[in-house]
Amino acid sequence: MRFRLTPQDGAFFDLLATSAGHLVRGADLLVRMLGADRTQRVQLAEKLHQVEHDADESTRDFLSRLNQTFVTPFDRDDMHALANGIDDCMDAIDEAGDLMVLYKVGVLPTGVADLVAVLRRCAELTAEAMPRLRSMTDLREYWVEVDRLERRADRAYRRLVADLFDHEEDPITIIKVKGVLDALEEAADAFERLANGVEAIALKES
Amino acid sequence: MRFRLTPQDGAFFDLLATSAGHLVRGADLLVRMLGADRTQRVQLAEKLHQVEHDADESTRDFLSRLNQTFVTPFDRDDMHALANGIDDCMDAIDEAGDLMVLYKVGVLPTGVADLVAVLRRCAELTAEAMPRLRSMTDLREYWVEVDRLERRADRAYRRLVADLFDHEEDPITIIKVKGVLDALEEAADAFERLANGVEAIALKES
Amino acid sequence: MRFRLTPQDGAFFDLLATSAGHLVRGADLLVRMLGADRTQRVQLAEKLHQVEHDADESTRDFLSRLNQTFVTPFDRDDMHALANGIDDCMDAIDEAGDLMVLYKVGVLPTGVADLVAVLRRCAELTAEAMPRLRSMTDLREYWVEVDRLERRADRAYRRLVADLFDHEEDPITIIKVKGVLDALEEAADAFERLANGVEAIALKES
Repeated sequence: MRFRLTPQDGAFFDLLATSAGHLVRGADLLVRMLGADRTQRVQLAEKLHQVEHDADESTRDFLSRLNQTFVTPFDRDDMHALANGIDDCMDAIDEAGDLMVLYKVGVLPTGVADLVAVLRRCAELTAEAMPRLRSMTDLREYWVEVDRLERRADRAYRRLVADLFDHEEDPITIIKVKGVLDALEEAADAFERLANGVEAIALKES
Repeated sequence: MRFRLTPQDGAFFDLLATSAGHLVRGADLLVRMLGADRTQRVQLAEKLHQVEHDADESTRDFLSRLNQTFVTPFDRDDMHALANGIDDCMDAIDEAGDLMVLYKVGVLPTGVADLVAVLRRCAELTAEAMPRLRSMTDLREYWVEVDRLERRADRAYRRLVADLFDHEEDPITIIKVKGVLDALEEAADAFERLANGVEAIALKES
Repeated sequence: MRFRLTPQDGAFFDLLATSAGHLVRGADLLVRMLGADRTQRVQLAEKLHQVEHDADESTRDFLSRLNQTFVTPFDRDDMHALANGIDDCMDAIDEAGDLMVLYKVGVLPTGVADLVAVLRRCAELTAEAMPRLRSMTDLREYWVEVDRLERRADRAYRRLVADLFDHEEDPITIIKVKGVLDALEEAADAFERLANGVEAIALKES
């Protein structure tokens, strides 16, 4: 059964903001994992799984509400794409943390901190932008900035892999560290895809 | 020339079910490739190419019919995305089989069977779901289950790569086996994207 | 402020054709990079960055015009997806060139020329197709051909990686060359996704 109740619209954006808030918590844990030893990393990765689990619940709440509501703030499939886009960012962050532990990578090159800082900032910008979807205002700076950050992540990623080839002689270490770097770079891509999705919705609805 | 002929609608879903049936045949061949020796693998990969070729023909039939029909069961671009989504799953399965042969990977870790079993089950669920698109009923269990399976595939994949690093010392073998595992995991992702697409259509059309 | 001015529609397709023209310039530079020594490659990669920068400006012009126009030739979000699709192709070409330099790969296997020739042809077909979006005619041959070329790229890619495993003994060289091949294959995928997007629009609008 679906019911028409416009004041409820706000709840959609609150749920999206909650989901996006989990992204900030997840990115914070990634930042802490970088400087941690193996035992701490295992614990932090556990916490990251919990955050990912919480984010999943938010997504399910959102989709269930979407399914029960007759009039949605904007196209139902766009709402769905937004929730999935946030989910993709969370999965990518969780994967990066997981690989750090599973691959037992040890100390990562210092430059990785830049890459993770970009993810942290992307998460923050995303969480701040979600409530603005309600009024469809002031979103432009969000997607322009995420786009800029993704480019920065991309450059940092390529430079890090090039340095790895220049300074690391053990091929298995190269494969492992490159695997973690790939996961971090894919997380930045996920944020960019989400921001592109928001841009497309804003273009359509404005 | 396009003609309006509602009873024809069923044919679209029959063609999608046929395409998805090829996915089941393809996944079956992957299962058999795991336990096979090199000579058998080469033969099974040949059969898999044939299945992929058949799936391609189904897709072309579907798209050609889509192009000739004026009234489609639901949005033309969603129908197109479905056909492409099935095609992506088939390509990913075919690629995984191809890499097993091209990379000459030999005996794969036993855990790979779990990953391929997940793909087999995803293919089956997809083939069963396609006819239900006609009435847009009972689809929820399909996408929820594929989502769950993709998570299982993801966990199995990461565990397998971690085990590979723990037990394999030859970097080139690691690269090859990881390449096959990557392809299998990407196939699971393709099934999840397809299921997400079906969910988006169901949300929009319901 | 948005204004209704139908004759302006042509400008959208001109801008898309300009963007796609940058893809041809970019692919040309990739072709030249293959036969070049390290010093020349560094210079050509610089030129490629410049082309990528120019393409970015075209995309921004396009999106800014899209934002200011009330009546667009077809759905606003489809126009947006087209611009992003061209941008993805450009980024992938730029990344492939960048990795050749950053990974210091030296002489690449001769078969790589086939892969790059496919990208060159895809870029050309894309640039030729963009103006035809205006009338939505004669587009079918474009997406059918890009689809065919992507398959050829895929086969060439897998064969090249298999040959690399057969003939190269140094794991780090394998990782580097495979990284460049992956980037080239992803560029072919980007062209196919763009062609699929055009097909979806043509289906919807026709």
